[in-house]
This record gives sequence, C-alpha cells and structure tokens, in this order.
Amino acid sequence: MSKNYSKDFIVDDKFDIEKSITKYKGSISKKDGKKLLKDEQDTLRLLQEKLYADGSQSVLIVLQAMDAAGKDSLIKHVFGGINPQGCEVTSFKTPSSLDYSHDFLWRHYIALPEKGKIGIFNRSHYESILICKVHPAFNLNEKVWDNISDFDDKFWENRYESIRNFEKHLSENGTKIIKFFLNVSKEEQKQRFLDRIDEEDKNWKFGLGDMKERALWDDYQKAYEDAINETSKDYAPWYVLPADSKWFTRLAALQIIIENLEKMDLKFPTLTNENLGELEAAKLTLQDEK
Amino acid sequence: MSKNYSKDFIVDDKFDIEKSITKYKGSISKKDGKKLLKDEQDTLRLLQEKLYADGSQSVLIVLQAMDAAGKDSLIKHVFGGINPQGCEVTSFKTPSSLDYSHDFLWRHYIALPEKGKIGIFNRSHYESILICKVHPAFNLNEKVWDNISDFDDKFWENRYESIRNFEKHLSENGTKIIKFFLNVSKEEQKQRFLDRIDEEDKNWKFGLGDMKERALWDDYQKAYEDAINETSKDYAPWYVLPADSKWFTRLAALQIIIENLEKMDLKFPTLTNENLGELEAAKLTLQDEK
Repeated sequence: MSKNYSKDFIVDDKFDIEKSITKYKGSISKKDGKKLLKDEQDTLRLLQEKLYADGSQSVLIVLQAMDAAGKDSLIKHVFGGINPQGCEVTSFKTPSSLDYSHDFLWRHYIALPEKGKIGIFNRSHYESILICKVHPAFNLNEKVWDNISDFDDKFWENRYESIRNFEKHLSENGTKIIKFFLNVSKEEQKQRFLDRIDEEDKNWKFGLGDMKERALWDDYQKAYEDAINETSKDYAPWYVLPADSKWFTRLAALQIIIENLEKMDLKFPTLTNENLGELEAAKLTLQDEK
Repeated sequence: MSKNYSKDFIVDDKFDIEKSITKYKGSISKKDGKKLLKDEQDTLRLLQEKLYADGSQSVLIVLQAMDAAGKDSLIKHVFGGINPQGCEVTSFKTPSSLDYSHDFLWRHYIALPEKGKIGIFNRSHYESILICKVHPAFNLNEKVWDNISDFDDKFWENRYESIRNFEKHLSENGTKIIKFFLNVSKEEQKQRFLDRIDEEDKNWKFGLGDMKERALWDDYQKAYEDAINETSKDYAPWYVLPADSKWFTRLAALQIIIENLEKMDLKFPTLTNENLGELEAAKLTLQDEK
C-alpha cells in the first residue's frame, strides 16, 4: 500500500470537527479496499509476533466514537487474524462501584497491556471527558466533589492535564499509544440505527439509551473536539478517521497501526556467545541420551 | 466433520498415561487436516459470536502439557480467526510475590473469563499439582507450610479436592470447562528441542530450564496421570490429545471445543413485545427528524 494514512488523518494542528470529513472520497474501490485489508492483516500478524518476541514495548490502541460508528466491527475485522495470545481487548462500560471508589484513571491503568502485547481500549479513559462532560452529574459518583458547580473550566483543565500526563508517562515507559476517533455523520448514524431496528437478528443490539445520547449530538461533537485538541500530542496522537464507510475506516486504522509498529524498531532476541555455548551443550546432552 | 473426537479423547475412566497414544494414526492426511482446520475456524467464530450475544455463559479452556508439546502454536492456529474481543488468553508463569501472598487458586480466579467470552489458560491452576508436585519445595513460597514433610498424601488430596470443588462451582455457575492435556512423547520432545537449538530464528525460545524439567520426565508423567485421574469429571472433563503431530492436535482440540459449544444451547437474545414497541417508537422518532 502506498497511501500514508498516518499523515492524512493525524491531528497535529487545530482540529475542527465541523470541517473534518466523515465520508471517504478517495480512489480505492470497496472491493480493492477489502482485499487490501486481508493482505494487511497478515502484515499485522507478523509485526505482532515481532512485538511479542521483542518483549520490551507494548501498544495501546484507543477507540472512541459515537454509537454505531463501527468500533466493535473494526476490532473484529482489523484484529480478527491476530494471535489472541498477543492481543487483549477491554470494553469499558458504566463504571462499577469499585471503579468509582478510585480515581478516574484507575480502571484503565489496571487494564493496560503488558510488554509484548497489543491492548485495545474499546472506549477508554476519554469517556471521563466525553460522556462525563455532556453529563457532568456522573462525576458526582466519584464522591470527591459535592456539586455540579464544581465542574468548572478548571476542573476540565485538570482532567485534560491528567490524561496528557498519564499518556506521556506511558509513552516514556515503553507503551506506543495510537488513538482513533471514528468520525461518523449524524445522518449515517440515523441510517445505522434504522437498520438495527429493522433487522431481526440485529435489533437486540439497539439500546434506547442510544437515542437519548443522539439527542445530545452537538454537545458530544463539542466534547470530542475539545478532548482531541487538548490531548493530541506527538507522544499520543489522535487520528480522526472518516467513518461513514466502514470498510475504509478499517483499512485506514490497520494501515496506521502498521505504520506505527514498523517505526518501533522491534527486534527478535539475539543470543550471546555464552548463550550459544549453553545451547551447544544442551544439544550434545540430548544427542547422547539413550 | 464426522469424527467425534470428544468421545475418542475424553477421560471418563481410569487414565493410564503409558497406554495413551502420542501419535495420531488415523486416516486423515495432514493436507486434509489443515483444510478442515480452516473450515472449522469459521464455525468457531460463529459460535463465539453466539456465546457473546447470549451473554449468560462463559467457556474456560485449560491447556497443559510438557514443554514443546505445542500449547502456544495451538492457541495461534485454533483461535487465530476469532474476534479478539470475545477471547482472552492468560499465560501463567512463575507466581509473583503478590500471587504467593494469596491461596494457590487466587491468581487463576481473577483471570476467569467474563460471561459471553472464551478464556484460555495457557498453563493453569494445574501447575499446583504438576510442577509443584515434582518440586514440592515450591509450595513453601506460599508460607502456609514450614517443611517439605508437610506435603504428604493428605496435602495432595486436599489440593485435588480444592480443584474439583473450584471447577464444580464454576460449572454450576455458567462456565463450561474444557481441559486439554497435549500428550507428546519423550522422543518427539527431544526432536523439537533439537530443532529449536538448530534454527537460528527459534533458538532464543529455548530455555535451559527446559532441559532440567526434561530430566524429570517420569515424575511429570506420574504427576499428570494422577492429576487427570483425580480431576476428570463430567462437569470438567480432561481430553488427552496425541501431540506428536501438531496439525492433528489442533484439529482435535478445535473439533472438541465446537462439539462442546454446540451443546451449550446458546441463544441470540429475543425481544419482548414491550421492547419491540419501544423500538418502533424510536424508529418513528428517527424518521421524523428534520
């Protein structure tokens, strides 16, 4: 593949959500795109093996989006060919009372991938500045604050800073962070909701809560724009992917992950002369067995 | 596939490790076996989706074997096509001091799969009656006992009973347990060790500790025989798979997993009339949007 999607979709300047595209209009056909995806899955599998063998670094992939933007199916189609031993997915839903009895990063911290592995956060610590920004009363569950009026600009500044520092620290200690915002249009979400309702084997996936959040579309768009502007850094960049065509979103995400892994300077372990001598001795022992 | 590998390889009677086969001698060719494996991967993927949608049960797969019997590559080849969101692999290595500060089941308990998922234990709580039986001094790390003489028959009886009760409890509370012992011959292990030593891109995988454990082969065989006899129950059966031909081990494991999943009576969620009415209302709201 020749396209450099990292460059095309990275947020390294001011991000304006209204001006960002939701629909891919490039020259790749859907059919070619699906074939490319298959080929690139093999590349990812081999890079993951190298990451595992290298054992000194991990990869954290953050997926954020509005409902029905395609997070779950992206995981299935991008990572469906990977060795599950090298990949762990954590879906963050409503926090538990145990989660709330800790700071807002705690449940994400304990789910971080170990070295050699790819960790995928399906939703993430960003919910604390997305859904919690749209519904500030949720923050009261953390018990640290008493009133909604506590959630002022300073409060949100602190959250952004906590997240930046968390990610900077991870990045300095062996974790490559890749963050995707799947940018779906309001019209496409509507169509996908209608499809879910109409298809009998899909309708159980539709939650009425999804309609309530859709009604707050503009608030979410603003929250995403702010979150991305505040936290897209060279050590943990955001990539905003057009998400109205699922096949393209998947292809772009996969390609960006591959580009990042290829830059990580992963190495298979090499043995010292002493190690090699020990192996030679082991070989002789085995050959001499009766 | 017509073969009923569940019946062929289940331990439902006295297990004699010396009489159990390590080499597949049936009529399937390696080429056909590999093709069958590919087809059956698709079946597993669909069953896993159903398990996830059903959401009321989980599957725990336990993998145990001597070194180089093919556990890691089995995970890669059997589960390589699965949605990683529905599958979690935990590799149990030397316990940490945190692990040792709890009872011997604790680190396994906290790694159990949630409902809707397949959990794979690459090594497992069985190490407590395998490697720890061959090296009883390891148990002293648990700090509960003072002397190696404490590890008498009664001690091991208690361990077996703890494991049986643990698994019975899980089975009664929604977890399907499937346990595989990959039965490799001593000669085949030797050949695989030699291959690892000789192949430059594999030799870093060879640990000198593996040679020390090989020297204790007979002790391990006895420990496996006892463990399997004590813990193969209808609620958590052991399957002993011939492991000298990796392609066959994988095929048999996959087929047995599929047979078990098919018996689990998994259902896609169905909606009540009330739910359907709510969906209809949501549909009208969406269609009326300006």
